[in-house]
Amino acid sequence: MLFSRAFIPTLRDDPAEADTPSHRLLLRGGFLMKVASGIYDWLPLGLKVMRKIEEIVRQEMNAIGGQEVLLPVVQPKELWEASGRWGKYGKELLRLKDRKDAEFCLAATAEEVITTMVTKHVRSWKALPIMLYQIGTKFRDEIRPRFGILRGREFIMKDAYSFHATDEDAERYYETAKGAYCKIFDRLGLKYRPVEADSGPIGGSFSHEFMVLANTGEDIVVYCTKCEYAANRERAECRDEQALRHKGTKAQGEAAAPQDVHTPGLYSVEDVANLLKLPKDQFVKTLFYWANGDRPVVCLLRGDHELNEAKLKRVLKIDDLKKMEEAQYVKLCGAPVGFAGPQGLSEKVKKTNPKAVVVGDHAIKGVADGCSGSFKKDYHTVHLAYGRDFKADSYEDLRFAGEGDACPRCADGKLAFQKGIEVGHVFELGIKYSVPLNAVFLDAQGKSHPMVMGCYGIGTSRLVAAAVEQNSDANGIIWPRSIAPYDAAILCLDIDDPKVKETAVKIYEEAKKAGLDVLLDDREVQAGVKFKDADLIGIPLSIRIGKRGIAKGEVELKLRNSKTPKFVPVARTLEAVPEELKSYSVQ
Amino acid sequence: MLFSRAFIPTLRDDPAEADTPSHRLLLRGGFLMKVASGIYDWLPLGLKVMRKIEEIVRQEMNAIGGQEVLLPVVQPKELWEASGRWGKYGKELLRLKDRKDAEFCLAATAEEVITTMVTKHVRSWKALPIMLYQIGTKFRDEIRPRFGILRGREFIMKDAYSFHATDEDAERYYETAKGAYCKIFDRLGLKYRPVEADSGPIGGSFSHEFMVLANTGEDIVVYCTKCEYAANRERAECRDEQALRHKGTKAQGEAAAPQDVHTPGLYSVEDVANLLKLPKDQFVKTLFYWANGDRPVVCLLRGDHELNEAKLKRVLKIDDLKKMEEAQYVKLCGAPVGFAGPQGLSEKVKKTNPKAVVVGDHAIKGVADGCSGSFKKDYHTVHLAYGRDFKADSYEDLRFAGEGDACPRCADGKLAFQKGIEVGHVFELGIKYSVPLNAVFLDAQGKSHPMVMGCYGIGTSRLVAAAVEQNSDANGIIWPRSIAPYDAAILCLDIDDPKVKETAVKIYEEAKKAGLDVLLDDREVQAGVKFKDADLIGIPLSIRIGKRGIAKGEVELKLRNSKTPKFVPVARTLEAVPEELKSYSVQ
Repeated sequence: MLFSRAFIPTLRDDPAEADTPSHRLLLRGGFLMKVASGIYDWLPLGLKVMRKIEEIVRQEMNAIGGQEVLLPVVQPKELWEASGRWGKYGKELLRLKDRKDAEFCLAATAEEVITTMVTKHVRSWKALPIMLYQIGTKFRDEIRPRFGILRGREFIMKDAYSFHATDEDAERYYETAKGAYCKIFDRLGLKYRPVEADSGPIGGSFSHEFMVLANTGEDIVVYCTKCEYAANRERAECRDEQALRHKGTKAQGEAAAPQDVHTPGLYSVEDVANLLKLPKDQFVKTLFYWANGDRPVVCLLRGDHELNEAKLKRVLKIDDLKKMEEAQYVKLCGAPVGFAGPQGLSEKVKKTNPKAVVVGDHAIKGVADGCSGSFKKDYHTVHLAYGRDFKADSYEDLRFAGEGDACPRCADGKLAFQKGIEVGHVFELGIKYSVPLNAVFLDAQGKSHPMVMGCYGIGTSRLVAAAVEQNSDANGIIWPRSIAPYDAAILCLDIDDPKVKETAVKIYEEAKKAGLDVLLDDREVQAGVKFKDADLIGIPLSIRIGKRGIAKGEVELKLRNSKTPKFVPVARTLEAVPEELKSYSVQ
Repeated sequence: MLFSRAFIPTLRDDPAEADTPSHRLLLRGGFLMKVASGIYDWLPLGLKVMRKIEEIVRQEMNAIGGQEVLLPVVQPKELWEASGRWGKYGKELLRLKDRKDAEFCLAATAEEVITTMVTKHVRSWKALPIMLYQIGTKFRDEIRPRFGILRGREFIMKDAYSFHATDEDAERYYETAKGAYCKIFDRLGLKYRPVEADSGPIGGSFSHEFMVLANTGEDIVVYCTKCEYAANRERAECRDEQALRHKGTKAQGEAAAPQDVHTPGLYSVEDVANLLKLPKDQFVKTLFYWANGDRPVVCLLRGDHELNEAKLKRVLKIDDLKKMEEAQYVKLCGAPVGFAGPQGLSEKVKKTNPKAVVVGDHAIKGVADGCSGSFKKDYHTVHLAYGRDFKADSYEDLRFAGEGDACPRCADGKLAFQKGIEVGHVFELGIKYSVPLNAVFLDAQGKSHPMVMGCYGIGTSRLVAAAVEQNSDANGIIWPRSIAPYDAAILCLDIDDPKVKETAVKIYEEAKKAGLDVLLDDREVQAGVKFKDADLIGIPLSIRIGKRGIAKGEVELKLRNSKTPKFVPVARTLEAVPEELKSYSVQ
C-alpha cells in the first residue's frame, strides 16, 4: 500500500475526548473514528488489525472442532422471553419495534438464538458434542460508554457455544476451550492470565476470564506468587486459616473485660481507630442488607476488610441484594446510626425480625481484643473477644482478598495484585438455558435429557484496544507482530531524489513479492513526519531509505521497540528484513 | 470435515414456508434457518458459501484501489437528518431509541456515515480519488419479506463509496467499478447482465444494475438481441421512431371524419375493443395524475401500452406522483368516468386549472385512425387522427418497453425480455450527498468544491440465493465451483466395511493435503441417503467408494451436473479429481 493513497488520517494532536492510551492512540493513528457515544467507524488500519485477530481466533476455534455460523443482530423478543432474560437483562439490552410493532432486541449475546437452532435440528446423542461459533456485531447499551472501543456499545465479539450429553463431557470440553484460548492469546503476542471468575448475568456453574495485563486496566487480577492460582477480584477466595494468623490482637482469652469508651461524634473505623490509637484490624464492622427485598442480613467484617457483595450473593444464593437504609437498621438492632456492634447482635435482630440472620466473615474469628459500636450514642466498646463477647450465626468467605493474603490453594504462597483488561470469558452453563428452551436429546436408550452447555466469548474488537494498552510508548503503538497492520514500513525520506525513490519502490515491490505486507511512505512530507507516523501507527519494522544512506549504498532498518538501527547494504535489504522481524518481540 | 460431526441439518421434505427454489433448497440443505420474518441464521454451509463470495468481492474491490472499513450498524439520527433522508426514507428504515432516548436507525445503507468520515479527514485534492468499502450487516424493514434471503430484512451487503475531484474522474471510476463487477460475477460463475437502471431513493445521476439471470427472478431484463443494450424494465427506453411504424391504423390523413358510437356500460380499452372489433393499439388512453400534489398531469398513451411512472417522474422532474381520484378528473376535464379522450383535452383541462398539462407518449403520434372516449356517457369516438383531431402539449417516452419493440440504440435490433435477480447496483451520485453533508475539498488553487461521489453495492447474502435460483435441478443445488461449500464429497457407501472405510479415510486425508476442501460422508446411514444429500447440498464432485468398486480396485467420480460417472483406480483418485473438477462448469 502507498501511504499517499491510503486512508490513514493520523492526527497531530491528542483528541480531547480520549481518556486512555488505546483510545488516544487509535484515534490519533487513524484506526478508528467516533460516530456516536460508544459507536465507532473502523478505518482501514483498525480493521486490518481486527481481521488479523479474528483470523487467529477462527483458526483456533476450528482446531477444536468449532463450526462457524452467523446469527442475526436483530433478535425476536419471543426467544428472550422463553429463556426468561427479556425481563431480567435490563437496559443494556437495546429493544426496538419493527413496522408491525413486533418487539426485538439487538444481539447482546446469542444463547437463545443458538440454543433454539440446535434444538430444532439435534435430536440424538450421536450428534453431540457440537460446538458452533460466530464472529459478529453485538450491541450493549452501556450506561457510561468510555475508553473508546474498550467499553463501547457496538462491538465485535466471537461467541462460541457447545452442547454436550454429559457434565463430564462439558467439563472436558471446557478445558479444551481454555487451552484454545491460551493458544489464541499466545499467538496474539499478548501477556495475559486466565483467572477464575464469577458467571454474572450469563449464569452457569463456573467460569474463567482471560485478562490482558496492562497497568491501565480497569480489572484487578489476584494471583499467587508461588502457585498457579489466579482469580478476578470479585472471585478471589480468602482462606479460613487466615483468621488464625490475625496479627495485632492478644491471644484469645487474654483480653480484659469489655469496656465502653467515649467516642463523641465519631462513627467510622478510621476515625475511632485514630482516636483510640488502635489498628483497624482490631475492629469489627456491622453491615446491614436486604436479601431478595425482605430478609435482613447483617455481615460482620474486620475493620480493615471490605465486603465482597458477589460472595455474599453466592453464599445466600440470591441475585437481589440491597443496602439497608439507616432508619431500617436502627429499628432492626436498636443501635443509633454508627454505633452497632457484634455483641448479642443475632439475638437482637431476630427479636425484631425472625427471618434476620448474622453472617460473619471468617476473619472475625481472629479478633481477640476488638473494638466496635456499643449500641449507645457516642460510645464504642473495647476488649471484645470472639467467642466470649460476640459470634455470628455462621461464618463464610465474605471479603475481598487483600494483597499479601495467604494463597487459598498452596501452602505458603501470598496473593499479589496486577491490573488487567477482560478480553475473554469461558462459562460452564450447565442446563441453565437448555431447560427453559427445551434443548433436549435422546440417549442411546431413547431417554430424554437436557443438553449440557458451555459458552466461550472473546471481545475481538476490545482486543485491538487491549493490545495497545499493553504495548505503547510516548511515541505511539507497538503492535505485536502477528496483529500489526503492516509487517514493515518503507520510509522514503527524500521523495524528490529519483535514486532514493527508485530504491524505495524497488524494495517495496520485492517485499510484496516476498509475501510481506508493507506500507511505502511515498508522501511529499518531511522525513520527521514519516518517522513520527510510523512510530504512532506502530509498525514493527521501518526500512528507512534516504540520500545519505544511498550514497553509502545502504538502508537503515529499525525495529519499533529498539533504539539502535541496523545498516544493511541496499541489495541485502530483503534478506535482512525477515531476520530483523524474527528478533522483534513486544514481550 | 466429517459429515458425522458437521452441523448440516438436511431436511427430508420441503419446508412449507418456502416459496421459491432457493428458499426451499437452502432451508432443506441446511444452509439457513429462519429466526423471524426476513431474519435468518446462517448455518455452517451457508456461511461457507457467503464467505467465498465475500472473498471474491473483497479481492476485486482491493484490485481497484478499494480500502476496506467497517461502519456501525446503529447510526445516529443526526447524520440522516443532515442528508435529508431521515424524513424521506420511510418505514424501511428501522428506527430505535437508546436508554437516553437518543434516536438511531439501523444501517440500511451508509452514505451519511462514510461521507461524514471522509469529510472530517480529507481536505485536499491530493487525497482524491479515494474508494472505501465495507462488507457488513444491513437492515431494511421490508413490508413483505419473502423468498428467504432474496428479500430478507437483515442481510449482508458490500457497499463501496468513492470520492472524486471532478465529474470526469467519477465517471472514469464508475466504468472501473463496472469492470470490477463483471470480474466478480465472472469469478462467481454466474450468468448475469449489467443493465441501465433508475437510481431510486439512493439518487444521483445514472446507475446500472447487475442482474443474475434466472427464470424465477422477480425482475425483468430488457435487452437487444443485436447490440449490447440492456436495461431494467423501469429504465428501458422506447424509440420515438417507433410511433411511425405503428401497425393497424391507416396512413395519416386517410381517416374518415370522427364519429361517435354507442358503447353502453363499457369503459376499458379491452371491452370497447372487443365490442367494436378494433385492435387495442388503435386506442388512445387518458391517465390523470397529481404531480407534487397540486399540478394536474394528463398522460396520453396508446391503448396497448402501459404507463411507466418512473419515466413520468423523470420527465416532470418530481418525486411525488399520485393518481387522481375519479371525481377530480371528472371535474378537471368534464368527461364522465371512463369517457375522457384526447380531443381538445389540453384546452379543456387548462380552462379548469391553468397549471394542468397534457403529456403524450411518442407512440400516440402513430395513431391515424383511433378510438377514445367521447366526453359523453356510454359513447366512444372512432376515426380519430393524430394531428387532425388530437394532440398533446409535449411528447415524451412514457411507456414500458414491450417485447419486440425496436432497440433504442441500434438500427435494426429488437428488444427481448428475460427474468433476473438484482444482485448489484452501481450509482453515479454526483454531489447529491456531498452538498448537504458539506463534503468539500480544496483544489490546487485553494478553491473549495463539493466532492463528486459514486456508490457501488453488491448483495452478498442475496447472491447466495441468486446462485441457487440460477443453478438447481429436481435433486438440489448445483453450485458453481468457486462458491461451492466443498470442492468434493467423499461418500463412504459401506461404512461397516473396514476396507471401504479405510480407503475413504485415506483419500480424504490425501485430498486435504492436496488443498482440496472435502466433506467425508462417514455417517451410519444408507448409501441412498448419502447420494441424496450430496445432490441436495450441491457439491461439484462426489467420490463414491463402495464394496463393489473396491473389489475391482476402483472408485467412482461423478460431477453434480453430469449423468455419467467415471471409474478410476483407487490409487489414481487424487490425480483424477482435479481433472474432473476442471471439466465442471454450470454454465
